[in-house]
Amino acid sequence: MIRIAIAGYGNLGRGCELALQKNPDMKLTAVFSRRDPSSVKTIDPQIPVYRLEDAASHRDEVDVLIICGGSATDLPTMTPMLARDFNVIDSFDTHAAIPTHFENVDTAAKESGHLAMISVGWDPGMFSIARLYGLSILPDGKDYTFWGRGVSQGHSDAIRRIPGVVDARQYTVPVEDALARVRAGEMPTLTTREKHTRECYVVAEDGADKALIEQTIKTMPNYFADYDTAVYFITMEELREKHMGIPHGGVVIRSGKTGKDDENTHVVEYKLALDSNPEFTASVLVAFARACARMQKRGVVGCKTVFDVAPIDLAPISAEEARAHLL
Amino acid sequence: MIRIAIAGYGNLGRGCELALQKNPDMKLTAVFSRRDPSSVKTIDPQIPVYRLEDAASHRDEVDVLIICGGSATDLPTMTPMLARDFNVIDSFDTHAAIPTHFENVDTAAKESGHLAMISVGWDPGMFSIARLYGLSILPDGKDYTFWGRGVSQGHSDAIRRIPGVVDARQYTVPVEDALARVRAGEMPTLTTREKHTRECYVVAEDGADKALIEQTIKTMPNYFADYDTAVYFITMEELREKHMGIPHGGVVIRSGKTGKDDENTHVVEYKLALDSNPEFTASVLVAFARACARMQKRGVVGCKTVFDVAPIDLAPISAEEARAHLL
Repeated sequence: MIRIAIAGYGNLGRGCELALQKNPDMKLTAVFSRRDPSSVKTIDPQIPVYRLEDAASHRDEVDVLIICGGSATDLPTMTPMLARDFNVIDSFDTHAAIPTHFENVDTAAKESGHLAMISVGWDPGMFSIARLYGLSILPDGKDYTFWGRGVSQGHSDAIRRIPGVVDARQYTVPVEDALARVRAGEMPTLTTREKHTRECYVVAEDGADKALIEQTIKTMPNYFADYDTAVYFITMEELREKHMGIPHGGVVIRSGKTGKDDENTHVVEYKLALDSNPEFTASVLVAFARACARMQKRGVVGCKTVFDVAPIDLAPISAEEARAHLL
Repeated sequence: MIRIAIAGYGNLGRGCELALQKNPDMKLTAVFSRRDPSSVKTIDPQIPVYRLEDAASHRDEVDVLIICGGSATDLPTMTPMLARDFNVIDSFDTHAAIPTHFENVDTAAKESGHLAMISVGWDPGMFSIARLYGLSILPDGKDYTFWGRGVSQGHSDAIRRIPGVVDARQYTVPVEDALARVRAGEMPTLTTREKHTRECYVVAEDGADKALIEQTIKTMPNYFADYDTAVYFITMEELREKHMGIPHGGVVIRSGKTGKDDENTHVVEYKLALDSNPEFTASVLVAFARACARMQKRGVVGCKTVFDVAPIDLAPISAEEARAHLL
């Protein structure tokens, strides 16, 4: 039985508890939180909740600690710190900062003799694996990543910070025409604007200047200025009724050429359609936590990513069963 | 530079030579053939061609030998035999016989201290990986494999053996309605007939009894009797004009539930659309040959499958580059 702990009990931590219930070879032994433990309501009320600062004193009860913090400010410090006492796994998703995070975690994990896995989820994570397989099999080709249709938390938050906005949801939507061209093996060059559009559902304060809010959204640098953005003002009731889910997904497509005269085109597509972004991410984290426990037992230490994990180490079945039934 | 040899120079062997030209860190050093070497025309005429029975005398010139034989009669004997002298890789695709083949190859490879990889291609191969990732991430779910639209060599051969048939092509076609239900996360139970149809393009001899040929095809056990099969009689000119390619592909879909009350459904799809079945299979073989060479250098011996290979071992780029650009 692999003993798992969770650090941080928000949507993602809760998703991990749910995912663990689907995997009878693993059990949740502890939750660590920065909140007052008595205020943390786990799904199974029997799960002990401890203060995060006391985590190290429970290290002998845990094989792998899943760190469910935010990438902006939590994980850059939490993951290296906790890797001193635990085998850890996180879903760090600031792509540009991955090399630095990797180095920091690798140093901490090697010093303490632990195994750490970073950037586990779907992007980074399963989409990264799809990109790497694609490049490796079809080196003469191009890859494309499209996200959505799904809720972007970061873009929703950016809208909420605009004066006069009460609440908002932003959906990232892939452009169907661009997708169709990529799927047809055309290997087009696509601008940011040609790949995705952004749909914003905004609840404004009574009397707010909606034209100004819309203008502020559409011209916001980095977030919206480079996209065709649609803004819809709705009531709080409509937001609650239609936009409370956290769906997401997307596709990674690798298109490449083979043949004496490059006459043959191949298109490889990996597609996700997810009802719940955090619950799917948590499901990926839990599968890689299994691999983390197995690899650590074999003496692997330091920082690893999804690229370093052989598929069989994720499996809830034996290698013999996998060869007989899935190969 | 990884030195590769190819045993068996048909469509698949030729595809391997072409794939190696796309991978500058590998080079083709020899082709072994059962035919008279002077009759084997490689794409690069500089490649030395030797008799298969002389292969062992060239073992010091080869890091990994890719065995491009048929699964019915060639590979069950060739792969264990050649694993005595080489690190080998094959595309053995008789699913039911994989455990036996694995044992035979494992014994031979361990005795001689070599690394062998079997059943590398797209199914078994990349589709198997998709099934294993799917099961591991969404254990409470179902997976579905659909093949096509593509040419099935085995079914085409079965038609050609019918008296009165000059030539034939059989296309395996997934049923769109079944695919749509699976993609929608319905997790239906589907019969063989509900998943695929079969399209046969047949050139008959002058004066042949076409009704009898059609009847013979449609009632052929294992191959056609369990499917809705369409038979079209065409001229040899039309066959040559429209049916000389070897396209194939298909999808693996994993659908699973998460949530406190299983209220969330996730659908993961891995899809291939291939202009040339043998050239894509060869591209997969070459990528795994790279992994074979790397793993063998680390001391891995015995028989392995695609399940045992970490994605990074396939990559034509470094782990640092992969983390920086693909993760």
